[in-house]
Amino acid sequence: MTTLERRNSTTQAVAEIRSLLGDRLSVAAAVREVHGKDQTWNPGAPPDAVAFVERTEEVQKIVAVCGKYETPVIAYGTGTSLEGHFTAPFGGISIDLSRMDRIIEVNSGDLDCRVEAGVTRKQLNAHLRDQGLFFPVDPGADASLGGMAATRASGTNAVRYGTMRENVLNLTAVMANGEVIRTGSRARKSSAGYDLTRLMVGSEGTLGIITEVGLRLFGIPESIVAGVCPFPSVEACCNATIQAIQMGLPVARIELVDAEHIRAFNAYSKLDLKVTPTLFLEFHGSEASTREQAETFAGIAEELGGGPFTWASKEEDRQRLWQARHDAFWATKSLMPGKEAFATDVCVPISRLAECVSETQKDLAANNLYGPIVGHVGDGNFHVVLFCDRGDPDEVKRVKEVYGRLIDRALAMDGTSTGEHGIGAGKIAYLEREHGAAVAYMRAVKRAFDPRNILNPGKNAAISLTQ
Amino acid sequence: MTTLERRNSTTQAVAEIRSLLGDRLSVAAAVREVHGKDQTWNPGAPPDAVAFVERTEEVQKIVAVCGKYETPVIAYGTGTSLEGHFTAPFGGISIDLSRMDRIIEVNSGDLDCRVEAGVTRKQLNAHLRDQGLFFPVDPGADASLGGMAATRASGTNAVRYGTMRENVLNLTAVMANGEVIRTGSRARKSSAGYDLTRLMVGSEGTLGIITEVGLRLFGIPESIVAGVCPFPSVEACCNATIQAIQMGLPVARIELVDAEHIRAFNAYSKLDLKVTPTLFLEFHGSEASTREQAETFAGIAEELGGGPFTWASKEEDRQRLWQARHDAFWATKSLMPGKEAFATDVCVPISRLAECVSETQKDLAANNLYGPIVGHVGDGNFHVVLFCDRGDPDEVKRVKEVYGRLIDRALAMDGTSTGEHGIGAGKIAYLEREHGAAVAYMRAVKRAFDPRNILNPGKNAAISLTQ
Repeated sequence: MTTLERRNSTTQAVAEIRSLLGDRLSVAAAVREVHGKDQTWNPGAPPDAVAFVERTEEVQKIVAVCGKYETPVIAYGTGTSLEGHFTAPFGGISIDLSRMDRIIEVNSGDLDCRVEAGVTRKQLNAHLRDQGLFFPVDPGADASLGGMAATRASGTNAVRYGTMRENVLNLTAVMANGEVIRTGSRARKSSAGYDLTRLMVGSEGTLGIITEVGLRLFGIPESIVAGVCPFPSVEACCNATIQAIQMGLPVARIELVDAEHIRAFNAYSKLDLKVTPTLFLEFHGSEASTREQAETFAGIAEELGGGPFTWASKEEDRQRLWQARHDAFWATKSLMPGKEAFATDVCVPISRLAECVSETQKDLAANNLYGPIVGHVGDGNFHVVLFCDRGDPDEVKRVKEVYGRLIDRALAMDGTSTGEHGIGAGKIAYLEREHGAAVAYMRAVKRAFDPRNILNPGKNAAISLTQ
Repeated sequence: MTTLERRNSTTQAVAEIRSLLGDRLSVAAAVREVHGKDQTWNPGAPPDAVAFVERTEEVQKIVAVCGKYETPVIAYGTGTSLEGHFTAPFGGISIDLSRMDRIIEVNSGDLDCRVEAGVTRKQLNAHLRDQGLFFPVDPGADASLGGMAATRASGTNAVRYGTMRENVLNLTAVMANGEVIRTGSRARKSSAGYDLTRLMVGSEGTLGIITEVGLRLFGIPESIVAGVCPFPSVEACCNATIQAIQMGLPVARIELVDAEHIRAFNAYSKLDLKVTPTLFLEFHGSEASTREQAETFAGIAEELGGGPFTWASKEEDRQRLWQARHDAFWATKSLMPGKEAFATDVCVPISRLAECVSETQKDLAANNLYGPIVGHVGDGNFHVVLFCDRGDPDEVKRVKEVYGRLIDRALAMDGTSTGEHGIGAGKIAYLEREHGAAVAYMRAVKRAFDPRNILNPGKNAAISLTQ
C-alpha cells in the first residue's frame, strides 16, 4: 500500500467507524496527541482517530472495519505504559477502552472476579474492600486491568502474589478478524489445550484486543505491617533481600530505594527519612506471623549493618509510604527540570542483583550521568531512571550507551531486558538479542493470528512484518 | 500420502535414524508396545521404532529426518500419562527421553535449577534434599520433568505451590524443523515478548520436543505437619475445603479421599483409617505457623461435624500417608480385578465443588456404577475413577454417558474437562466443547509451528490437521 492509498483507506475506515459511534469517535488534535505519546523519552505518533468504545461488540465492529481497510488498530487503556505501547507509528484507530469500566462479577467464594478491560486497579480494589478482598498486582500507576494484562504488568507485590501472568484466570479478546474468543474457564488450573491466556497476556495488543479479564483475588490479610530499613549501601540492601528470599521469608513487598530517591521522596512527598539506601518492606499474614516475619527481617538487616527496621501497621502511614514509592518517577523528575527520563527495567536472577546494580552504578559514575535506582528487588527487578537532556547530543549518546550496556549486562546474567514494562516500541531492538531464534516463533504466532498486521503494528514481535 | 507411501517413508526414516543411533534405536515389538499404550482405557498404538536419545542434538537430527519423510515424532518420558499422550495412531518414531537424565545445574541462591527432560521429580528431589531445597509439583507418579511440563501436570501440592504452568521458568525445545529454541531467561518475571514458555507447557509434544527445563525451587519448610480428618460426608469434606481456601489458610495439600478409597487404602497400603470420607492435609511453615494452621483447620472441621483432625510431623508417617494417596489408582484397581479404569479429571470453581461431586455421585448411583472419588479439592479438581468391564457393552455405554455428563456438568459450572491430565488422545472430543472458537487459534499456532503436522499428530489441538 502506498502512503496515499493508506491515507485514503484510513479516511474511509474513519467514516465507517463514525457511522457506528457518532461523537464517540474523535479526530480532535488534542485527543489524538494524548493517545499518541507516553510520559517517557519514546517518540510519540498520534492515531488518525480515537474511538471511545463501550462494549465488546463495538470493538468487534471497529476491528472488522479496520481489517477491511488494512488500517492499524491500537488499544488504549489509561496511557500509563512506559514503552510507547499505544503510539501509532503507522496511524490508524486508537480504541480507548476507559469507558468499558464495569465490574461484571465478583465471586467472593472463589476468590475471583471478571471486569471489563477499562476498570482500573484502584477502582477494583475500592469495590472489593467491603468484601475483605483485594487484587494484588500493583504497578504504581492506576492502570487499567486490560492494559496491565496486555503488558504483563507487575510491581511491588509480585514477589509474593505474582504478576499478571499468574493472576489472570482467563480473558475475552477481539481477534484480528473481528471474532471474539474467551481463553479459559474459572477453574484454578486446567490442562485443556494450549495456554492462550498466557499467550495473550503480554502480547501488547498485537494478537488481539482484550475487552474483559477474569482475575484471581485474595483475602485482605488479617495483619499488614510495613516499614523502612536503612542500609549503609545499595549492595547491603541487595544482600539483605537475597537472604530474605533465600530463607523463604514470605515478604509481600521488598523495594530498594536508593539515596537519591530518598532525597527526592523527602522533598516531593514530605517524608523525613535518613538519606541512605533503604528497603521499603511489607509483610502480610496473621498478627503472629507478620510480627515473626518483621523480627526475622530485622535480624537479617542487623547482621548486614543495616537498621533499625521501623514499622507501621496503621493504614494511613502505610499508604503514605507506598504513595511516595509510587510517585518515585515524579519525585526524581521534579529534581531534574528540563530533562527527559529513560525508564529502564532489567530483571536478573537474585544472586546476581547486587553485582548488576553496583556495576551499573559504576558505569553511571564513569559517564557522569544521574541515574537514581529503585527496584522490586525481591524479584531481581530494578529501574535506573536515566535523565537526559535531549538538546545535549553527547549526553544523549552516553545515556544510550549506558542503557545498552545495562541490558547486555542483565542478559549476560541470564536475566531479561524488561521485568514488567514490556517491549512496546522502545525495546524492539532488544527482543532478538534476548530471545534469539525464539523470536521467529513469536512472529509466526503473530502472522497466524493477524496476517494483515493490523493489530498494533510496529510493537513487540509485530515489528518485522511488512506494514 | 497413501498408506504404502507412508510405510515406505517411515522405513527410510528408521534406516537413517539407525545410522545415527545404532542400537539405541529399537524396533523390538515389546519395546514398541510399552511405548504405545498407557495404563488406562485409552486404546494403544505402537510407534514404528523407539529412539533412546542422550542429547538435544540427537533429538534435532531425528526430528529433521522425520521432517524430511513426514514421519510422526512422539516424545516419551516415563509413560505415566493418563490420556494416551504418547501413543502412535499414525505410527512414527517415539523419542524416549529417559536417558537424558542429567541435572544440569542447581542455583540454590536463586531457588532454581535446570534439568534434562528425562530427570524424574523423585530423582530431582533426592538430589536437592541436602541443599534444603525441593521441587513441589507432585502428580503422584514419578514422572519425568519434561513430560510434566509437556502435560502441564500438577497434583497434591498445587494448591499452595502452583502447577507446572507456574513452576517452569523456561525451557529448551526442538521445533518441527529441527531448530532448538530456549524460551526464556532465569529472571523470575519478564515482559519481553510473547510467553512461549507457557505456550509450550501443556502443548503435549505437538509444538516441539522439550529437552531441557528450567524450574523454580523452594526451601524445605522448617516444619511440615500432615494429618487426616474424617467427615460424615463428601459434601462436608468439600465444605471444609471451601472454608479453608476462602479464609486464606495457606494449606500445602488438601486431598479428598472418599470412603471407597479409604477402604482400598486400608487393604492395599495397610492403613487403619476409619471408613468415611476423609481429608488428607499438609501444612508448611515455621513451627508456630504450622501449629496455628492445623489448629485453625481443626476448628473448621469441628464446626462441620468432622474430626478429630489427627496429625503427624514424623517424616515416615507422612510418607506412608502420601504414598497411600499416590497409590490410590492401584489400590482401587486391586478391588476390581478384570475391570479397566477410565480416569476423569474435572476441575470447577471451588464454590461449586460440593455440588459437582454430589451430583456426580447421584449419577453414578442411578447408573449402578462403581466410581470412587479422590481429589485435589483445594483447587476444585477431583477424579472419579470409573471402573468398567470392556466385555459388557451396556456397562461401557453407561460409563461413557456418565463420563460425558460429568464433563458437561463441570463446563456448565465454568470449569474445565481436565485439571491436570491433559487432552492427549482421550479428551479430544471435549476440546471444542470447552474452548469453542478459541480452538481455531490453538490450531493456527500448531499449523504455524509444525505445518507438516509431524509432532505428535492426533493429540490435543493437532487432531484436525490432515495427516
